[in-house]
Amino acid sequence: MERYDGSATMIAVRKVYLDRQGRFQRIQMFETQDFGRMLVLDGKIQCTQRDESHYHEMLVHVPMLSHPCPGRVLLIGGGDGGALREILKHSPEKVTLVEIDPEVMEVCKRYLRIDDGALNDRRVEILFKDGVEYTKGCKQRFDVIIVDSTDPDGISQGLISVDFYTSCKRILLDRGIFATQSQSPFIQLQHLKQIWTNLSRTFSYQKLYLSFIPSYPRGIWSFILASERNLPATLNPLKQRYQSRGLRTRYYNPEIHISSFALPNWLKESLGKSGV
Amino acid sequence: MERYDGSATMIAVRKVYLDRQGRFQRIQMFETQDFGRMLVLDGKIQCTQRDESHYHEMLVHVPMLSHPCPGRVLLIGGGDGGALREILKHSPEKVTLVEIDPEVMEVCKRYLRIDDGALNDRRVEILFKDGVEYTKGCKQRFDVIIVDSTDPDGISQGLISVDFYTSCKRILLDRGIFATQSQSPFIQLQHLKQIWTNLSRTFSYQKLYLSFIPSYPRGIWSFILASERNLPATLNPLKQRYQSRGLRTRYYNPEIHISSFALPNWLKESLGKSGV
Repeated sequence: MERYDGSATMIAVRKVYLDRQGRFQRIQMFETQDFGRMLVLDGKIQCTQRDESHYHEMLVHVPMLSHPCPGRVLLIGGGDGGALREILKHSPEKVTLVEIDPEVMEVCKRYLRIDDGALNDRRVEILFKDGVEYTKGCKQRFDVIIVDSTDPDGISQGLISVDFYTSCKRILLDRGIFATQSQSPFIQLQHLKQIWTNLSRTFSYQKLYLSFIPSYPRGIWSFILASERNLPATLNPLKQRYQSRGLRTRYYNPEIHISSFALPNWLKESLGKSGV
Repeated sequence: MERYDGSATMIAVRKVYLDRQGRFQRIQMFETQDFGRMLVLDGKIQCTQRDESHYHEMLVHVPMLSHPCPGRVLLIGGGDGGALREILKHSPEKVTLVEIDPEVMEVCKRYLRIDDGALNDRRVEILFKDGVEYTKGCKQRFDVIIVDSTDPDGISQGLISVDFYTSCKRILLDRGIFATQSQSPFIQLQHLKQIWTNLSRTFSYQKLYLSFIPSYPRGIWSFILASERNLPATLNPLKQRYQSRGLRTRYYNPEIHISSFALPNWLKESLGKSGV
């Protein structure tokens, strides 16, 4: 069971594979009745085999397909390997994965097994470091930076700071695109607003988009795309890129990509005019 | 707590206003911590004050704005008055509301109070009848028919039958539009497929659309629009109708309308080619 203010999600568990207090966070791995295997960190559902594609495909393909040629990619977090698996579908030259917690990766490799070999791919460099520290001192440059972090109240707090976003902007190449998960707008609107505001202090353009993620708080999840250039999303170029890169996806398609930027009135109003 | 296969939603309750076994179903009304008042029928969350607009606006405005001039409207179910409130925003000549259970309406008038006076509007005729029986013998004709039913395993079972859909088609005027809620595609895919198949046996055109409804099973909900004419959804005419009818909405807007027809790949595949 995951609780949030005034409501909770329960998922029926058949077997507990692992429940241990790691160095950075409590790590639990379950076999569930209807969601396949499930990773829980500090009591929060991170990933279920049944619906992880909803999250990872939207986190990755929206920025990656917004870029004409994403050769160099930085992934902050994402030790489960799901986002990495999706990034590799775009045949990048190199992906740098910066994960703070080696135990999460080890547990996911053993039990969750959603990476489809991505965590052992020769194009991937894996660094067990804090993302804030890494980006501050980084001398490489990237076409796309993707942040696949946990909720920003624990070890991921620094990953929503203006300092971190400024470092990310500095290490983006020309036409570079930044994307981050940005919490549930229904349950964690304060977090979302903080991420939105801090990004707007850093980047010239940003756009919020939404996805259905059934195992996440109340099923609605948000992401933000940011860059120094406007990123108009038009259907035909996305379709062409989707086809020419030979993508195969369970949730994402170019129509969903375009549609995910349509926001309910209450959410537009919450973000102010800049959110429209 | 509402349970479904392998998962459940819990909503913290502050006060129980009412819990009684009515003639047709068990009726419960709660004050919740974060969702306002909540109506539960036979153990299933029907409506919370906080997110009922997500459901009612999408159920109503998608068919109503797809019609150039929806003067005569039939609403089957919807005794809480939320869908009726949204229908009246389009200034119809007459709305016929056919609700099987007078107790639900009475309880909602007293505690839920989401109808904004719609249940007492002079343009509304309220009949406490079974929707299947009513449509079978009906001599009136309608521009739009909207089905706001409970899950199809209890008293609403007849409302997903080919017989019922055939009666609805018979009493639609030229250019008439039929719309129904069609359950959670993630949790109740079998129900959705049955509704989809039965509608496809009756109508020439149909389209599935989705909405985020946080208090419903896993937050994702579906609806189907059906008619004898193709209903292309294009943004500018919808915007014009939205403005000229003076609509004000909390969730719906014409961009959301268009976007709601974009379906995840797994759902398209589940519905077969006809679902695309």
